Amino acid sequence: MEVAKVFHMNGGTGEASYAKNSLLQQKGILMTKKITDEAVTALYRSHSPETICIADLGCSSGPNTFLGVTGLIKTIHQECKSNGHRSPEFHVFLNDLSSNDFNSVFRSLPAFHEDLKKQNTGGEGFDPPSCFVAGVAGSFYNRIFPSKSLHFVLSSNSLHWLSQVPDRIENNNGNIYATNTSPPSLLKAYYEQYERDFAIFLKYRSDELVKGGRMVLTMSGRKNEERSFNEGSRYLLEPLVRALKDLVAEGSIEEEKVNSFNIPAYCPCPAEVKYIVDKEGSFTIDVLETLEFHMDASDGNYNMVQALRAFVEPLLISHFGDDELINQVFHKCRDIFVNCMPKGKIMFTSVIVSLTKKN
Amino acid sequence: MEVAKVFHMNGGTGEASYAKNSLLQQKGILMTKKITDEAVTALYRSHSPETICIADLGCSSGPNTFLGVTGLIKTIHQECKSNGHRSPEFHVFLNDLSSNDFNSVFRSLPAFHEDLKKQNTGGEGFDPPSCFVAGVAGSFYNRIFPSKSLHFVLSSNSLHWLSQVPDRIENNNGNIYATNTSPPSLLKAYYEQYERDFAIFLKYRSDELVKGGRMVLTMSGRKNEERSFNEGSRYLLEPLVRALKDLVAEGSIEEEKVNSFNIPAYCPCPAEVKYIVDKEGSFTIDVLETLEFHMDASDGNYNMVQALRAFVEPLLISHFGDDELINQVFHKCRDIFVNCMPKGKIMFTSVIVSLTKKN
Repeated sequence: MEVAKVFHMNGGTGEASYAKNSLLQQKGILMTKKITDEAVTALYRSHSPETICIADLGCSSGPNTFLGVTGLIKTIHQECKSNGHRSPEFHVFLNDLSSNDFNSVFRSLPAFHEDLKKQNTGGEGFDPPSCFVAGVAGSFYNRIFPSKSLHFVLSSNSLHWLSQVPDRIENNNGNIYATNTSPPSLLKAYYEQYERDFAIFLKYRSDELVKGGRMVLTMSGRKNEERSFNEGSRYLLEPLVRALKDLVAEGSIEEEKVNSFNIPAYCPCPAEVKYIVDKEGSFTIDVLETLEFHMDASDGNYNMVQALRAFVEPLLISHFGDDELINQVFHKCRDIFVNCMPKGKIMFTSVIVSLTKKN
Repeated sequence: MEVAKVFHMNGGTGEASYAKNSLLQQKGILMTKKITDEAVTALYRSHSPETICIADLGCSSGPNTFLGVTGLIKTIHQECKSNGHRSPEFHVFLNDLSSNDFNSVFRSLPAFHEDLKKQNTGGEGFDPPSCFVAGVAGSFYNRIFPSKSLHFVLSSNSLHWLSQVPDRIENNNGNIYATNTSPPSLLKAYYEQYERDFAIFLKYRSDELVKGGRMVLTMSGRKNEERSFNEGSRYLLEPLVRALKDLVAEGSIEEEKVNSFNIPAYCPCPAEVKYIVDKEGSFTIDVLETLEFHMDASDGNYNMVQALRAFVEPLLISHFGDDELINQVFHKCRDIFVNCMPKGKIMFTSVIVSLTKKN
């Protein structure tokens, strides 16, 4: 499966859309705010460009699309205000795969501008129309911007997605992702795919950033050396594993079809991120941390099955095809979430890395 | 009616889509090639940027979306090749209103890159991936790019569209656009709206272009001083006027509703364009011409009713609302095209202006 061709968050604003089911991601973005603010402030102090060019890679479509960028703009605006400077113009590039719902992103631009205006009312020298937004469709595992055209790159909750499921992986012992009961060779193949992908990502971004340009990358990750998804991701995916097994037992899906389904994602630990950044060589690491946040699984605000569906449905459709079957899968997932899953606090882990381009 | 909120070419690739019905527009683009080539070559010789930033304003969605830009890239590539230089990188911004089908534009990016590759095979120093495309949603009657961020602006077959139907216009004597049987005060109001809109367009583009930056603008126009649509545009719209009158006679639409429907477009003559450019003052005129091209109305290759529908349907839906009624309108238009309209050659007129930014 070529991920760039099939993968996207569910579009629109319906019940199963990513727009309505991205509270978790939002929490992640807010937690990284301090690190991001430090990075963009340092960048602005060192470069003071008349127009600051920012790319948000993996912007998706929904309330989070503008969240990171809005934060950056406000931070620079505050920095300018406190120094009596006029704010620069902002050229913002929102990137995601071409299957992302960019029409929906563009339709929410007026609300974004309105929000910027409101939040900065009374700020001197800050004119909301001086933020110009463009959409860029394409995989960030390719070059997507001209050389030295960006000052700042942000990517939140996207870089754990691989460019593809690793080639030639064997039976995953009934799992659909890399976890502690997967065969060691599969875990190795997943890590190697992540290493290749992340190194390519770093290389291309170093081509696209100006000297001294900054990146803050947050991705689903893990704390320890044991290669697996973190607790939260496993918790979200466990009902899907069970539902697929049930459907095999009932004869609705062939076992072989489920065995060949693997999710193209990898949750790295900080040591792995450091190793790849150092080996690739274009960036210095300013901050590298894990962030943990809890979600209360008994909190009615989280609709687990919709949260799962928003990111995993396009992958299932691409692999299994059948719409009716997919509905059955999520119907079962709903029952399993309600009746079988523990209701305590669930921990999600992210890795955040703040980088500066050398040379 | 606020045009920016409702107006767009029909999306997708169905029978009534703009993508399938834009042969006329294509002819216009090809006829302007010589003038555009001269302008972009002059720009490249004077500036030789490492990355050349090009905006196509009013790109729509369909086969024409990439036509103008592909031509520019090929021309610069040829210029570089003949001088033994390496081609610059291209940063291409495709702009249209936020109601445009950008998802469809982005889905056709791989075909665009494939086309560039094929057309430049064997060319030294030309690497097709060095063209980076972004989508920009918004009215070109607003600022849509940072200051001094563009080298070249192209706009084909869009600038005759006004930002709105002029305010406070009286009864249009049964017409739905500015034509020779419209009241003089209405013709004046349409011209004044065009003058305001085009002057604002020039002002904002002069903010966005680098010094010496170039623009080539083509719009539906006319040769003479008499304010009216050109023959071709009138020919396309005549069946719509008749169909609406029929529906009023049949009692399907209120007369008042038809009387208040006016198309937000104006076809300028070269003298008007020159007056506005000189008065606004940011640009010098390098070329200003009318282009005429004939369409054979008896040629089965043109599906007139679909050509009409592709650009006028969104306006009708916004004004009349009722989908079933709109289908009736186009059913009648089809009969009128087939049975009542002359079948000879129809002349379309465009105005093309090539401009250089002063200072």
